[in-house]
Amino acid sequence: MRSPVSDYLAEVLEGCAGDTSGANADYIPELARADSDRFAVAVATLTGYVHGAGDTDVMFTMQSISKPFVHALALQDRGLPAFLDKIDVEPSGEAFNELSLEEGTTRPRNPMINAGAITTSTLVGEPDSTLAHRWERILGGLSAFAGRELEVDEAVFSSELETAHRNLAIAHMLRGYDTITEDPEAVVANYTRQCSLRVTTRDLALMAATLANGGVQPLTGERVVDPPVVREVLSVMTTCGMYDAAGDWVTRVGIPAKSGVAGGIIGALPGQVGLAVFSPRLDEHGASVRGVRVCERLSQEMGMHLMEAPAPARSVLRESGVREVDGIGTAHVYALQGMLQFAGVEQVLHDLTEEPPSTPQVVLDLSQVYSVNSVGRRMLREAVRRLGLDGLTVHVVDPEGMLD
Amino acid sequence: MRSPVSDYLAEVLEGCAGDTSGANADYIPELARADSDRFAVAVATLTGYVHGAGDTDVMFTMQSISKPFVHALALQDRGLPAFLDKIDVEPSGEAFNELSLEEGTTRPRNPMINAGAITTSTLVGEPDSTLAHRWERILGGLSAFAGRELEVDEAVFSSELETAHRNLAIAHMLRGYDTITEDPEAVVANYTRQCSLRVTTRDLALMAATLANGGVQPLTGERVVDPPVVREVLSVMTTCGMYDAAGDWVTRVGIPAKSGVAGGIIGALPGQVGLAVFSPRLDEHGASVRGVRVCERLSQEMGMHLMEAPAPARSVLRESGVREVDGIGTAHVYALQGMLQFAGVEQVLHDLTEEPPSTPQVVLDLSQVYSVNSVGRRMLREAVRRLGLDGLTVHVVDPEGMLD
Amino acid sequence: MRSPVSDYLAEVLEGCAGDTSGANADYIPELARADSDRFAVAVATLTGYVHGAGDTDVMFTMQSISKPFVHALALQDRGLPAFLDKIDVEPSGEAFNELSLEEGTTRPRNPMINAGAITTSTLVGEPDSTLAHRWERILGGLSAFAGRELEVDEAVFSSELETAHRNLAIAHMLRGYDTITEDPEAVVANYTRQCSLRVTTRDLALMAATLANGGVQPLTGERVVDPPVVREVLSVMTTCGMYDAAGDWVTRVGIPAKSGVAGGIIGALPGQVGLAVFSPRLDEHGASVRGVRVCERLSQEMGMHLMEAPAPARSVLRESGVREVDGIGTAHVYALQGMLQFAGVEQVLHDLTEEPPSTPQVVLDLSQVYSVNSVGRRMLREAVRRLGLDGLTVHVVDPEGMLD
Amino acid sequence: MRSPVSDYLAEVLEGCAGDTSGANADYIPELARADSDRFAVAVATLTGYVHGAGDTDVMFTMQSISKPFVHALALQDRGLPAFLDKIDVEPSGEAFNELSLEEGTTRPRNPMINAGAITTSTLVGEPDSTLAHRWERILGGLSAFAGRELEVDEAVFSSELETAHRNLAIAHMLRGYDTITEDPEAVVANYTRQCSLRVTTRDLALMAATLANGGVQPLTGERVVDPPVVREVLSVMTTCGMYDAAGDWVTRVGIPAKSGVAGGIIGALPGQVGLAVFSPRLDEHGASVRGVRVCERLSQEMGMHLMEAPAPARSVLRESGVREVDGIGTAHVYALQGMLQFAGVEQVLHDLTEEPPSTPQVVLDLSQVYSVNSVGRRMLREAVRRLGLDGLTVHVVDPEGMLD
Repeated sequence: MRSPVSDYLAEVLEGCAGDTSGANADYIPELARADSDRFAVAVATLTGYVHGAGDTDVMFTMQSISKPFVHALALQDRGLPAFLDKIDVEPSGEAFNELSLEEGTTRPRNPMINAGAITTSTLVGEPDSTLAHRWERILGGLSAFAGRELEVDEAVFSSELETAHRNLAIAHMLRGYDTITEDPEAVVANYTRQCSLRVTTRDLALMAATLANGGVQPLTGERVVDPPVVREVLSVMTTCGMYDAAGDWVTRVGIPAKSGVAGGIIGALPGQVGLAVFSPRLDEHGASVRGVRVCERLSQEMGMHLMEAPAPARSVLRESGVREVDGIGTAHVYALQGMLQFAGVEQVLHDLTEEPPSTPQVVLDLSQVYSVNSVGRRMLREAVRRLGLDGLTVHVVDPEGMLD
Repeated sequence: MRSPVSDYLAEVLEGCAGDTSGANADYIPELARADSDRFAVAVATLTGYVHGAGDTDVMFTMQSISKPFVHALALQDRGLPAFLDKIDVEPSGEAFNELSLEEGTTRPRNPMINAGAITTSTLVGEPDSTLAHRWERILGGLSAFAGRELEVDEAVFSSELETAHRNLAIAHMLRGYDTITEDPEAVVANYTRQCSLRVTTRDLALMAATLANGGVQPLTGERVVDPPVVREVLSVMTTCGMYDAAGDWVTRVGIPAKSGVAGGIIGALPGQVGLAVFSPRLDEHGASVRGVRVCERLSQEMGMHLMEAPAPARSVLRESGVREVDGIGTAHVYALQGMLQFAGVEQVLHDLTEEPPSTPQVVLDLSQVYSVNSVGRRMLREAVRRLGLDGLTVHVVDPEGMLD
Repeated sequence: MRSPVSDYLAEVLEGCAGDTSGANADYIPELARADSDRFAVAVATLTGYVHGAGDTDVMFTMQSISKPFVHALALQDRGLPAFLDKIDVEPSGEAFNELSLEEGTTRPRNPMINAGAITTSTLVGEPDSTLAHRWERILGGLSAFAGRELEVDEAVFSSELETAHRNLAIAHMLRGYDTITEDPEAVVANYTRQCSLRVTTRDLALMAATLANGGVQPLTGERVVDPPVVREVLSVMTTCGMYDAAGDWVTRVGIPAKSGVAGGIIGALPGQVGLAVFSPRLDEHGASVRGVRVCERLSQEMGMHLMEAPAPARSVLRESGVREVDGIGTAHVYALQGMLQFAGVEQVLHDLTEEPPSTPQVVLDLSQVYSVNSVGRRMLREAVRRLGLDGLTVHVVDPEGMLD
Repeated sequence: MRSPVSDYLAEVLEGCAGDTSGANADYIPELARADSDRFAVAVATLTGYVHGAGDTDVMFTMQSISKPFVHALALQDRGLPAFLDKIDVEPSGEAFNELSLEEGTTRPRNPMINAGAITTSTLVGEPDSTLAHRWERILGGLSAFAGRELEVDEAVFSSELETAHRNLAIAHMLRGYDTITEDPEAVVANYTRQCSLRVTTRDLALMAATLANGGVQPLTGERVVDPPVVREVLSVMTTCGMYDAAGDWVTRVGIPAKSGVAGGIIGALPGQVGLAVFSPRLDEHGASVRGVRVCERLSQEMGMHLMEAPAPARSVLRESGVREVDGIGTAHVYALQGMLQFAGVEQVLHDLTEEPPSTPQVVLDLSQVYSVNSVGRRMLREAVRRLGLDGLTVHVVDPEGMLD
């Protein structure tokens, strides 16, 4: 059997290929010259398998897609409060290259506009680090997200640096406000280098999957950043990642995402998948025209939308009843199954509360449980403790150590 | 055993009770006079059980919390395109009572600011309906969300209508732009009536749970609105529901939410729970001070954040192997378990693709599956079809009709 | 001889008549129906003579041209500080009917936008006056500016009041902020009545001439408002009277002016003339297309621009020398001429300082002086006092009482 | 006799000296170190006499006061249309160092904000000139305004260039928009040099007087720029020269003016005087605190306000009657006096029209006229032509060539 997933992706690609509207980014000569017809989509699972269709191995530069990953590194290195001292997290309602600072302060509006991203790149590594070391941290960190050593496209880097007037303007302004304290020209060089890292659509899908996977690279198993960092980065991508305005993307697509002017777009659906699309022609917001259409189709057809709740869970309580248990004797057995979050565990506790166990011995069987989150774990532990206080003996069957 | 959930909620309440900062809404005399010390929290499960702590049965008026529900009714009655013709979905970055229209158009920025909510109230029911009928639809619809007949607090309604200068200003402006076409004074009366509906914190938790439950009221089982409507409403609550700026709430709390100036706040986490808090003292954004703190604690301590992915799923493939099956004979049995979304089904298909079944007979056992979403269902059906094309005989064991 | 002035005006009219671009105001049915081809220009001297060309006796409604005159009445009745408490004087950069308030306050940006003008209309008369009395004051005051009893065009008034949605929106908002304290509907009725006063182009030229004349109506000789009021009104007309932006009008025309949507424009050049134009087709700013063109031509061709300095004054010192004077004997005679402002008097004082009088008797002959302003008067008086302190005897010949 | 003018200025200085609020500019170390107590005022007449009080010979740097003069040079060199292609003339409502561009274009809002002034400095001289030549033109031109060779304060220049982060930001942005096409660093160097020119309060008064005098330096008699250039520059100073908002300055002071962060302020009243004040402590808008107070007093006490009309002119018609004239015989003599602008000449023409000359011979005696503007001249010429067409013989007595 051929996997229907790749077939489906090929079908989506074909369905969107006819849209040749938009145009390559024109302000960087190297991007203007790129082959406009390239088109690729890739979906990476949290187990590291990548489904793809189209030109998934063609190299292009990350451009603004580097922003959320450097944002993640800066948060990992400095912590959230230090980061928020410098950069806010509000959608700007303005184009990506505006010199937008938060009113009454010297903070860029968010880390996804250039002013914020340039500042972010100076928050990677130690406070007293050199710019050379910061660059090594960025290169190493983004490579860890990708699971392979990334390299700079030197032709794009040179081309981009020569015409980096607006970024120089932004950096000088940030220097004027002491928002950055290093040499503006050198800071812009680092930032431009980060934008010039070469990736494939496949790379990007895996980088996005690392975010969807809570910060652990699916292939290498390396923890690149911690879960709270991922939560913050995905939140910011949700409101500030696409377009100048947050509402349209959240309602229509509902996937935390980021676009780059070379034509790439990434999306990360927490706990599910990372995805990436590549097509160089851009819309008026600077996002890939066909990339946006692919995202819309995946959101609608595959239910990949933050607000798309799974169908209400059937009971996680697989079995509840009194029977003989080997080595224990007569016991009330509660066998749970599936994924235990607040809602499911609450149901079990509800039952325990309304109708207490009918025998002094209680078995809590978690062998069919495949996932539990922190609140679920704490609720179950508390239930075990309370049943003990009620004078019952509780035996927990937990071969996978779900409650540890 | 006492349920630890209510105990936990009581603990949260106690932890936040000390914050007596803020002040009652002062521009409506009746609200100014409310008892500032009231404090309640409630969490409603999708099965309709409500955990609560504090003054969960004290009545207060919905105020702006009515907005997302009337938004839902308007979407249900008119459809999304007709709605978007009149009202945009972008966060306004402005206070709730500003006369903010989208630049260059006559569309209010979103349905959560007053200009948008007043317009929304005229989009409920049929286009040629009378305002009296629109009111009946609003009253009936919001009662359906709550699962009981709601009533107007006539004292608040009168008090509010007398001082409704700004809403009258907004309505006259909207009339000037033909965004609304009915009498501005009568439209404001209907809108004020909707804001004056009396609810308890318990009611609000169930109304929120109806949204979390995809539009079906957990207690009555009534489908109040369709799933696409819920998806749109929750998306808009995410970016426009709290505060003037979207980023702060999404990063810090990450729950689609809405506040009202009487002191209520609701939150709805899709597929999980509805929650509600009540405490009359407001912050500078017009949201309940203690209500916001409770939301922050629930988000952090209970993992109730949109970006909080559950721990990566263990395999949904409970069993894969060749064995004798009653009434079939030797077969390769694939037994699935848990909740089947894209990611899980993809793993099964991946296995089927990499290592095809070793016998001509295949059993797909879904009896341990408790949930499947539309893309998972389609992927499994397609797999069954393809295995058939490959010449295999596939027996689907699906006692709950998961693939129907 | 026929006066070349009227011929010149006829020539200007003819030169601009070909421009039939723009369109009548369309939001008030009565204005939409007006004859679009009407065209008139009038220039009123400070002696009350009116030169005109075209349809100078056709009646139309004042609309926003009423604003500076009601502004003048409010300043006269309440004084500048009380007025500034309620309304600022900054150009708004926004369209005339926006609900623009100064940021962080509840003051309309200036008295020329509708929010400011509506508020202004409530500041006429005594603070505790009724709206009926305020209307009488407005009607009487504007009639005094015109030099005849003005009347309301009842058809326009009714038509305008029926579609006054935006003004009602503004008034309700102002009421919400307590910027106005009277019934919004009644305030808008008064304001609409003021806009519906009927005038001819000739009337408007005389009303403008009253401002140019320091507040004294040239024909009736009545002092309608005081000089400081006029100075404030003309200043505000300069920056806020035309278009949404101040710079363009000040640089290109440089005449304090105000337009109305019925097609009228007035201009007042202090100390020189009042002018008025009428042509109903409006540009995108709501100002008469041909009216603006006429103003531009008059500014350029007649040197009617605030920055157009008269050619540098020849000496105001007509004679300086020692001779025999009847009844006095030998004296140093200083005979002055023309208009004495700071610059001219300074020259005389300069001479007296550099080269003191050569005789103990000094004659200061002002019989050829036709005008002196307050600083010139004070400087001359001080010079007389100082010459006395120097031991000289000063005889002032001042048949017109210029120094009194 | 001592001139009362200087005494008056000394009195004004003394009256304002007590206000020691505000603080030196702090972002340029050299300015921060300046003696805060310095205080000077100077008034220059159009004949080149300078009245002064206080530290009128202390040197300080022009800073933003250089802007209107370089604006004048650019207009003189390139013409108004070419200038307006690059820079608009609207007040920005923003602080002087904002990167404000006109919406939807790449034009700085006006030549008085830094973005506009930096662009303006590249429009001096020929389009293909080098930056070195542009600097020579700026240095030469500003020296011509002052009437002496100005020099750069090298310490301030270096200090300012080192901390010119925001101006570098602005210049890079302008380069990014192709609003400027030269090297941003070199452009900022030229601009900073222009700001660092050293002047005294006396110098500034004469530079302002050159503007008030229509572009002719009062002492040297050199025409520095043409009258239309002066008209444009003074118009822009009126709306954009002081503060971020135009209305306040125009209403309260009404003098075209410009301030600099070293503490200087200039004002130019067309046809009357140039004035300058110096006091280093600045208000929140970056204008000298005591400088603003002095301007307010001069405006109020000396009637130096654009809207302050001189008292209505007495008749310019000194004599009208039939008498014997030497060498002509019986003639109707019209003897005019004073300054002839539109208003005065119109009166004479009015008389000639209403009551035609009673003899075939007419004498028009202009020997007592000391000034006539272009429209007055054209009106009189036309009257002479028309009287000739009516069959009359007109003898013009014009010893000063007023009608030429």
